[in-house]
Parts: sequence; C-alpha cells; structure tokens
Amino acid sequence: MLSSYSTADKVLLALDCIIFGFDQHQLKILLIQRDFEPEKGKWSLIGGFLKRTETLDDAAKRILNHLSGLDDIYLEQLYTFSEVDRDPGERTLSTAYYALINSEDHKLLEDGDYTAKWFDIKEAPNLIFDHNEMVQKAILRLRRRAVSKPIGFELLPEKFTMLQLQKLYEAILDVELDKRNFINKVNALDILVKLDEKDMTSSRKGSYLYQFDKEKYDQKIEEGFTFKI
Amino acid sequence: MLSSYSTADKVLLALDCIIFGFDQHQLKILLIQRDFEPEKGKWSLIGGFLKRTETLDDAAKRILNHLSGLDDIYLEQLYTFSEVDRDPGERTLSTAYYALINSEDHKLLEDGDYTAKWFDIKEAPNLIFDHNEMVQKAILRLRRRAVSKPIGFELLPEKFTMLQLQKLYEAILDVELDKRNFINKVNALDILVKLDEKDMTSSRKGSYLYQFDKEKYDQKIEEGFTFKI
Repeated sequence: MLSSYSTADKVLLALDCIIFGFDQHQLKILLIQRDFEPEKGKWSLIGGFLKRTETLDDAAKRILNHLSGLDDIYLEQLYTFSEVDRDPGERTLSTAYYALINSEDHKLLEDGDYTAKWFDIKEAPNLIFDHNEMVQKAILRLRRRAVSKPIGFELLPEKFTMLQLQKLYEAILDVELDKRNFINKVNALDILVKLDEKDMTSSRKGSYLYQFDKEKYDQKIEEGFTFKI
Repeated sequence: MLSSYSTADKVLLALDCIIFGFDQHQLKILLIQRDFEPEKGKWSLIGGFLKRTETLDDAAKRILNHLSGLDDIYLEQLYTFSEVDRDPGERTLSTAYYALINSEDHKLLEDGDYTAKWFDIKEAPNLIFDHNEMVQKAILRLRRRAVSKPIGFELLPEKFTMLQLQKLYEAILDVELDKRNFINKVNALDILVKLDEKDMTSSRKGSYLYQFDKEKYDQKIEEGFTFKI
C-alpha cells in the first residue's frame, strides 16, 4: 500500500504575508509584533494558522485583513517553508504569500489589539523564525518580476514623471540607475505614452508626464521581456 | 491573542511529483497507479504524505525514489494546492514538485509493488483529484523557464545538432518552429559553440554538431533573457 490517511502525520500549517509597500519613494514592509509565545513581543510577518475549512488563498486574505485592516489585496503564493525546527512552538509549516501595494492608498487599522506598522525595508527589525528568509525570497521574486514584466500600474499615480518610474525601479532593485540610460531602456519597452503636459512641482522647467499604454502594458504582461539594468 | 498552537487545526500534507521526461523526441510524464481508496486503480502523480520529521524537499525525494527508483533528481517546489474538497479521502493539502529529466539516462524500478510508467504527455490518462491542474501549472512553469533561461544542458547529449535542440523547444512549447527562424534566435542568445564536426546519421550532407558554452550558459541562467517564439 502506498500510504494511508489514518497513519499519516498531521501538521500545523501557518500562513505568513509579506506585504511590500511603495510610497513613491521607498520600499516598505508591513510588520506586526507577535503576541504569544514563543518569541512574544518580537517583530514578525503578518501570520496565522490555516483553518480546515478554507483554502490557503482565503486564509492569507483573512489573516491579513484581521491583523492589518487591509482588504482587496491580490496576494500571490510565494513558497511553502518546511524546515523541521523552523517554529520552536510546534511542528508547523508555513506557506508565504506576498503583495506589493501603494501604501498611500491603503489605510491600516489604527487601533485594535495588534497594530501593523510599515518599516523602511532597510531599517526593518530582525524577524522571528525563518521570516527574514521569507522576506529575502519575496524580494528576489519581486525583482525578477520587475525585470521580466511591466510593473507600476497599481503603484504610480495615473500620470507620472519618468523620475517617479525610475524611483520605483530603484526601490525594488535597490540600485541607483543612470537617468539617461533608464529613459532609453524604458522607451525601448514601448509601454508608455508621453503626454503633452508637465509636472511643474519638481523643477522650473517642469517634467513631462507619462501614462501607461494599457493595451501594450497588458500585452507585455503576457509576453514578458528582459529589462536589463 | 493572535492564535495559539493548541487550538489550531492540523491537516494532512501530501506531496505530488510532476516528473517530465525528454527522450530526444517527446515530452513525457511519469505516472503511477494509485493503490488505495479513494480512486484506487486510477492514474496519479507520484505522491505520498509528509512525515513530521522531514522537510518538503526531503519528502519529495523520498517518495519519488520509493515509488519509481529515481534518485539524484533536482526537484523544484511548484505550488501548494489547497482546495478544501480536493481530496475526498480527508482534508489534505498537497505541495507539488517538478523536474525535467533525460528519461533515457534514468532507470526506473522494473518490478516492485508500484510500477511508475512514462506516458507521452499528449496521451496521458486523466488523473485523480486536482493532478491534471498540477500538471498544467508545471507545464506553464516549464515553458516560462524555457523562454527566459537556457535549457537543455542536462537533457541533450554533450554534442547535439541544431535539430535536436529545436526538438527540445518544440516538445516543451508544444509548437512547430520554423527552422531558419529558430537557428537565428538561438544564435542570437550566444550560448552555443559550433563544432568542426558533423553528425552524419541524419542526412547525406550531415549536420553540424554544437556544444553549450558552459560559461555563457551559466551567465544567462543568472541574467535571464527573452526567447520569443
């Protein structure tokens, strides 16, 4: 006999949500203080346990909403972490989910028992268990995503300057990009429409505003590309 | 309190291995007949249950080896499937793993209680539970992999013809490719070395043999590219 249900081991399955935020300047991450042992009081990803009666997608949404107030977020499954001793409390596997949201557009719960808090990704505290590793894996996934498909539609204002788009790429890739070089590469992707309109707040000369060409943007989402930095 | 270990639900966690084979002609898949209820006797991916004391990676290797004899296979985690009613036997989630191997280089267990069998991917039987969906997701992942990174090093003979490489791409992408067009695109990737040597078995004129330039190949694995078909 291959196996049987009655003799197989049961385990706890947790979910942890890696929520990246972008505020037009920096990449941020949403964290929460754990309120039970072990590691009570330390910083953690937003997580909880799967219920028998829900899917992983539903559980991730429920937990995120319950602990942060965030709703209507598209969470993508990242990976299931399974080191045997990863959680000293009990044998627990964890499926990590991630999302990148415009942190200015989404209100957090302001009071409540657990208050989730945004941290600049570079100043984030050390996290419990294998949560640092989860964050690293999510950042790599996000970077691969950013150089192989268009990004920014949900993160930038409807009309934006080339500098704003550059700041998004710089925040995700954690590099400084050469302006001229960046403009050439973005133009080569052919997903922008240059408007006959300027943002006058940043300089006297002003900066041209752009929009995404939604049709071309969606087509490139399908096809993919290689954006070499 | 966020949650606690003692009140959280425990679940069964299964693993299912999607093993693609390439025999220099076609894409194949390794399947097994299930020998316990429900769905006893039907075709299934190679699967089993996680033990408390092992990681998912280790469990996938153990199960694959036990049921097929395959050893030393690099399995990559694909996705964790969690529909509530996916397994009518009991609430069971399943983490799927996949690999693409040269099916001619790997011997299967020839006897034993469960005999795994290769099927041409287009003639594979209908599978139990959500296993068809798992296979579809793995094929999509494999295709994305094939057009964004070099593929073939472990699958082709050390020296191969352009036609053999084309057949690999055709098998994975499930399309017929134009020969001249394919050659141009592959040459543009700059990962091949053309040898001063011909394979004389396929035609009177013979076909030049190629090798991968391992250094450039590995560099492209890092960088990625877009291979448009």
